[in-house]
Amino acid sequence: MKTRSLLGKRFRKKGISNRTRNITISAIKEMPILASKVPGTVSLAQGIPSFQTPEYIRSGLIELLRTNLDIGKYSLQPGMPELRRAVADELYKTRGIKADPDREIYISTGAMEALACGILAVIERGDRVIVPSPTYSSHIEQIKLAEGRPVYTPLKEEGGWKLDAENLRKKAKKKPRAMVICNPSNPTGTVYEEGELREIAETALENDILVIADETYDFLIYGDKQYFSLLSIPEMRKNVIGCFSFSKKYAMTGYRVGYMYAPESIMDHVLKVHDAATICAPTISQYAALIALSQESDEVKGFKKAFESRRDLICRRLDAMPDVFEYQKPEGAYYVFPRIRIPDADSYSFALQLLYDAKVQTVPGAAFGPTGEGHLRMSFAGSEDVINEAFDRMERYFRSDKIQKYQ
Amino acid sequence: MKTRSLLGKRFRKKGISNRTRNITISAIKEMPILASKVPGTVSLAQGIPSFQTPEYIRSGLIELLRTNLDIGKYSLQPGMPELRRAVADELYKTRGIKADPDREIYISTGAMEALACGILAVIERGDRVIVPSPTYSSHIEQIKLAEGRPVYTPLKEEGGWKLDAENLRKKAKKKPRAMVICNPSNPTGTVYEEGELREIAETALENDILVIADETYDFLIYGDKQYFSLLSIPEMRKNVIGCFSFSKKYAMTGYRVGYMYAPESIMDHVLKVHDAATICAPTISQYAALIALSQESDEVKGFKKAFESRRDLICRRLDAMPDVFEYQKPEGAYYVFPRIRIPDADSYSFALQLLYDAKVQTVPGAAFGPTGEGHLRMSFAGSEDVINEAFDRMERYFRSDKIQKYQ
Repeated sequence: MKTRSLLGKRFRKKGISNRTRNITISAIKEMPILASKVPGTVSLAQGIPSFQTPEYIRSGLIELLRTNLDIGKYSLQPGMPELRRAVADELYKTRGIKADPDREIYISTGAMEALACGILAVIERGDRVIVPSPTYSSHIEQIKLAEGRPVYTPLKEEGGWKLDAENLRKKAKKKPRAMVICNPSNPTGTVYEEGELREIAETALENDILVIADETYDFLIYGDKQYFSLLSIPEMRKNVIGCFSFSKKYAMTGYRVGYMYAPESIMDHVLKVHDAATICAPTISQYAALIALSQESDEVKGFKKAFESRRDLICRRLDAMPDVFEYQKPEGAYYVFPRIRIPDADSYSFALQLLYDAKVQTVPGAAFGPTGEGHLRMSFAGSEDVINEAFDRMERYFRSDKIQKYQ
Repeated sequence: MKTRSLLGKRFRKKGISNRTRNITISAIKEMPILASKVPGTVSLAQGIPSFQTPEYIRSGLIELLRTNLDIGKYSLQPGMPELRRAVADELYKTRGIKADPDREIYISTGAMEALACGILAVIERGDRVIVPSPTYSSHIEQIKLAEGRPVYTPLKEEGGWKLDAENLRKKAKKKPRAMVICNPSNPTGTVYEEGELREIAETALENDILVIADETYDFLIYGDKQYFSLLSIPEMRKNVIGCFSFSKKYAMTGYRVGYMYAPESIMDHVLKVHDAATICAPTISQYAALIALSQESDEVKGFKKAFESRRDLICRRLDAMPDVFEYQKPEGAYYVFPRIRIPDADSYSFALQLLYDAKVQTVPGAAFGPTGEGHLRMSFAGSEDVINEAFDRMERYFRSDKIQKYQ
């Protein structure tokens, strides 16, 4: 895959490590940087819930900022013991897995840091790592940071970006060290079926492949669809690293707090990387996470309802632009990954034109793996007003003659 | 150097990457984990200021938690623009360096993450990296994480752990890629002289060695000693990565926020690693940092005075135990690195005995490089009561017959 940069950077190579030369900064993060220089854009780019962090979490923190003497200090390096116990309880409630909070859990500086530390701990230079394509672009970055080799198993767009079990089994024969899977999927909004996940588990166990599961969007499943986690399969307990987040469910993206489950033999090593990376997760954010888990909140439940309405809204708006986009309806997360219905559309140029000409931020599909070319990722985490404004602009833009330059 | 673990862990190796197998979790972080299972210890181990984060920072955050809609959301990936501008101003004021806040500064998840991202970006597998010995143990971890090879230049204990310029020049001839230097020094409390730093700069420039400067303790210089930064040498501007922290000066260790200066050609790559590591520094912590810089605070100035009294206190207490410890008086930071006056003392066993028998946490000197063996690191960031209690316990312990087992 080509190394591309929306920012148009020409990267000097001398004196830069191979691991870093080979990675591309995520277009997800480049787009907002680029857009910060373009006045008046609206964003369907980065996946940031429009909501404020719930009131009970903010007011809990306000109280602690007044009274708690430790909120500004390092926590233990694997995280605050009471938070580790709370997330272990959460994993038991939601996945039926009994994790030891002292040995199998660590509190991470966001799910991203958990993924980075996990991947750096287990992936050796040259190791193959299976990823679906399209997949979350940061997983590709992280594999390259570890000097691993991403091996793409293409998803089947028709029918909702489903796993191609036969292709996966083929790739699994090539002795990959691991597989990284995001469920529900960023960028496609796919929720894998229990059957698909059992297929993945079976293939992984047969071929001694460690599965790294990014379950950031586990709470965000629409309609009657049921969520199933790889961690609920008892045989996987020694064969899975699970990465979890508070960012999306509790509108806490800026707090940088998540957690990892891993078997002790792996966790011991992960913690060495975590220590070298950030020492400990931000203590104030760990307290925020502890407050988040302390009660059932109608405000938090309301987020999910709002995302479902936004999903329906963005689908209606896409339906009204059938000449430009076709898409698979998302079943989870807050992303849709429409195909650009223009022959040989280059997703980078297309996203840049949308930014500069229509003043709409999106993310080019090619950032998510080879199968992503010809697509855009659109987030519907923003408010209905933002979604409507973005689509109003795109409709105006595609009614104008500018579109002809792509044809 | 042997891989040692205070926790007595036996690390499984199968399926773990070389980069991770080779690193040791810092004894600085293991000691508190171990101590959390031992009731009633006092700590001279981790360097955590006893103070609460200043009132003006906490009350500023309380206000923002009520009113600011973005405090819970991702910032731009390199950090909030207003904070980047503020730290660029700070670097100009303190070091006379004009850094471009858009291209040469990023806001990191603590100085530790800045160091990790810098080292991963520039150190290739097998690259030699010069570090003084003793040095901050995490620098060693981070070099190993990048599969680099630490090359130790021993400091001269006699006279205050000074640089051996001749040894440095010898090591510099072996084509190292970089040097990592902590000034003021953790663990010795040494403040390098301007002359020593100009010597380092000259050697680095002559031999094309990038210098990675950890200036976490820049504010903490005792007596009449002057602080001098490598960044103040104009010729070094293209040859230095500077890593800075809010943790110690503002008693904000738990916030995990710091920053990096690097020339643009390096920063472009560092940001790719940062993106894969933590996306962005915690936004709430970035606001805390912005508030911290917004005013001159008597409370913050008071911290420095208090650390100086504590330095004097710990020196008096060490003076009273001449049979057990001898030490070089720290000129900066809040660490002292006494030699254990027991022939062939093993610093790991010694630290464990102090923990279990005297209930005092310290860090074994061997964690800081080969020259560190036979020493302990003691932090005097804790309150005078803590320092006194720790020394009362050690005095009682060494008056008892237990000490004889080491002789």
